[in-house]
Amino acid sequence: MWSSRVATLLTRLNITYPIIQAPMAGGATTSTLVAAVANAGGLGSLAAGYMQPKDIRATIQDIRRLTQKPFSVNLFTPQSFEISLDKIKKVSVPLNKMRTELGIPTSDLIPQIKNNYQEQIDIICDEKVPIFSFTFGIPSADIIQRLKSNNTMIIGTATTVDEGVLLERSGCDAIVAQGSEAGGHRGTFDGEFTMSQVGTIALIPQLVDAVSIPVIAAGGIMDGRGLAAAIALGANGVQMGTAFLTCNESGASRLYKNALLASNEASTVVTSTFSGKPARGLHNEFIKQMADYKDSLPDYPILHTLTSDIRAAATKLNNPHYPSFWAGQGTRLSKTSISAADLIKLTVEEAKRILSPEVSIKSKL
Amino acid sequence: MWSSRVATLLTRLNITYPIIQAPMAGGATTSTLVAAVANAGGLGSLAAGYMQPKDIRATIQDIRRLTQKPFSVNLFTPQSFEISLDKIKKVSVPLNKMRTELGIPTSDLIPQIKNNYQEQIDIICDEKVPIFSFTFGIPSADIIQRLKSNNTMIIGTATTVDEGVLLERSGCDAIVAQGSEAGGHRGTFDGEFTMSQVGTIALIPQLVDAVSIPVIAAGGIMDGRGLAAAIALGANGVQMGTAFLTCNESGASRLYKNALLASNEASTVVTSTFSGKPARGLHNEFIKQMADYKDSLPDYPILHTLTSDIRAAATKLNNPHYPSFWAGQGTRLSKTSISAADLIKLTVEEAKRILSPEVSIKSKL
Repeated sequence: MWSSRVATLLTRLNITYPIIQAPMAGGATTSTLVAAVANAGGLGSLAAGYMQPKDIRATIQDIRRLTQKPFSVNLFTPQSFEISLDKIKKVSVPLNKMRTELGIPTSDLIPQIKNNYQEQIDIICDEKVPIFSFTFGIPSADIIQRLKSNNTMIIGTATTVDEGVLLERSGCDAIVAQGSEAGGHRGTFDGEFTMSQVGTIALIPQLVDAVSIPVIAAGGIMDGRGLAAAIALGANGVQMGTAFLTCNESGASRLYKNALLASNEASTVVTSTFSGKPARGLHNEFIKQMADYKDSLPDYPILHTLTSDIRAAATKLNNPHYPSFWAGQGTRLSKTSISAADLIKLTVEEAKRILSPEVSIKSKL
Repeated sequence: MWSSRVATLLTRLNITYPIIQAPMAGGATTSTLVAAVANAGGLGSLAAGYMQPKDIRATIQDIRRLTQKPFSVNLFTPQSFEISLDKIKKVSVPLNKMRTELGIPTSDLIPQIKNNYQEQIDIICDEKVPIFSFTFGIPSADIIQRLKSNNTMIIGTATTVDEGVLLERSGCDAIVAQGSEAGGHRGTFDGEFTMSQVGTIALIPQLVDAVSIPVIAAGGIMDGRGLAAAIALGANGVQMGTAFLTCNESGASRLYKNALLASNEASTVVTSTFSGKPARGLHNEFIKQMADYKDSLPDYPILHTLTSDIRAAATKLNNPHYPSFWAGQGTRLSKTSISAADLIKLTVEEAKRILSPEVSIKSKL
């Protein structure tokens, strides 16, 4: 039924359907969600980038209690950054204004950034996770080798053809091609992100022509029409993020889910104001208030750390003005009161109807 | 063979294949190109927005000598604009520097903008063109009525769902949905263009769900994979621009064609520096030199008029630094030494293979 390209991906990842639930850092990808996707035949992904090593291990063990199927764990490749006291001081003005409004303590501390990437990698290797995916760069040859010796499949993230070619050369087994429609952080690691906001319909065929490993389309894919389109473009499968956020098993807050369900295709912007790194999310008061500071934003991950108490407090207080509501451009197609398994089932059935109309007509006769 | 959605568009426009050659202002859409597309079974479009009324009439008559098939003429809905002497003075500095480098006279004149939209519309009505398309807004109810009484089909341009709904309400027969990948001017007329850069794969299904008239997908579509993907998303057909620019019959300069063929998916930016209105084109020296003036750009169409001698002179001198090379994000898929008819044929054949794999297997047996 599936094309040979799709079948290749299914075989390599040992999954039933060509749907990957995107790793979405910030608490949405609970062990329940990851396992529900895996049990439904897709590939669930734990977003472990911001997690402490011991929590990564505990969650992997949780997932393994909930499913026998393969799953993926995602990390961020560390970035170099500069600590600018001047920039930190400048943004503390609007941030402290928000803190006061939220009733939490103001702060002028310089955040201590502890890089625990090596420990995170050690857990991934020690736990022999079936699939490892990464964003923001390429792990060292040594790490790639360690993962390969565990038979861990490796998936990188590209936003341009050139990045995809670099990933293939590094030894990746597949590439997530992140179109400009995608919610969350831009994965760009080679070149200017402004030039790397390429729409999925343009990115996929150009990347597929340039590499020989499987390409997984991401960005704006919310249903079977998107899955069918991605396959038509030459992708071996899709990664869906926003569509899983509103599922029953998602760890996204009710506040976040409601914001997604009330939004539309023109509700998002790409902003660096929350973390210091460009990411697509729903436009809100936070982004508006930080607009004047766009030339003095501290580097990622400093700004991410600086804004974390504000985002957490706002979420706790049910205040939609200050959390980061990462979202793609397909939110009119968000579903509510749906399980991850039903989302996968509906998506696959619709895509099959689109890609093989003759077959479905025959089966009706 | 085609889905019922595609068949509806073919019947309404009286064409054979669901491919519209985009109206690309600036000389690419010669009568030869428009007629070649029409004769090959697609819909050719004359970009008449910048043309004098008498030239529009002469070109329409030319097209009619070259084909019996339907064709389309595109106009720009007029925009309100302010004449800021201060802004004109500011941008005259970099513009005069370019003029000196190109060896053409410097200028400090205030451009006289003559609005000839009513005369343009009169020609369209007088010539009873089969299909009229427009960008940047919605013609008045009176104009829509005049066109309808001529049995002229009317196609509007939308960049968001809300714009599409407005077009349907105004009496349009179809909507071109312009994804963020598209080359040339953004058609946004309702809301901020920064929020209206929605990728094709996200825009099409959301728009299709909201309107009942045909939706034509535009942006990043270069081959049969793009056509098949658009149909899978629910579009009734596609509009392709960049792909036709490098065809034999295109009026684009050799300089422009070479720039397209040497570019890739990450070569374009959306810039207002050429015309005062956001448009996607290949990044070049002009855009770089104007970067410091981004907050003092005169309104469209004043800036368009101010930069026209520079763009023309650079093209004449084979200087790639200063023309506007409008382009979409799919340029790695640009073909050279191909006729418009062959582009259409290859695109349709590839899309049919993708959308009906069973049928093509059977036909091989």
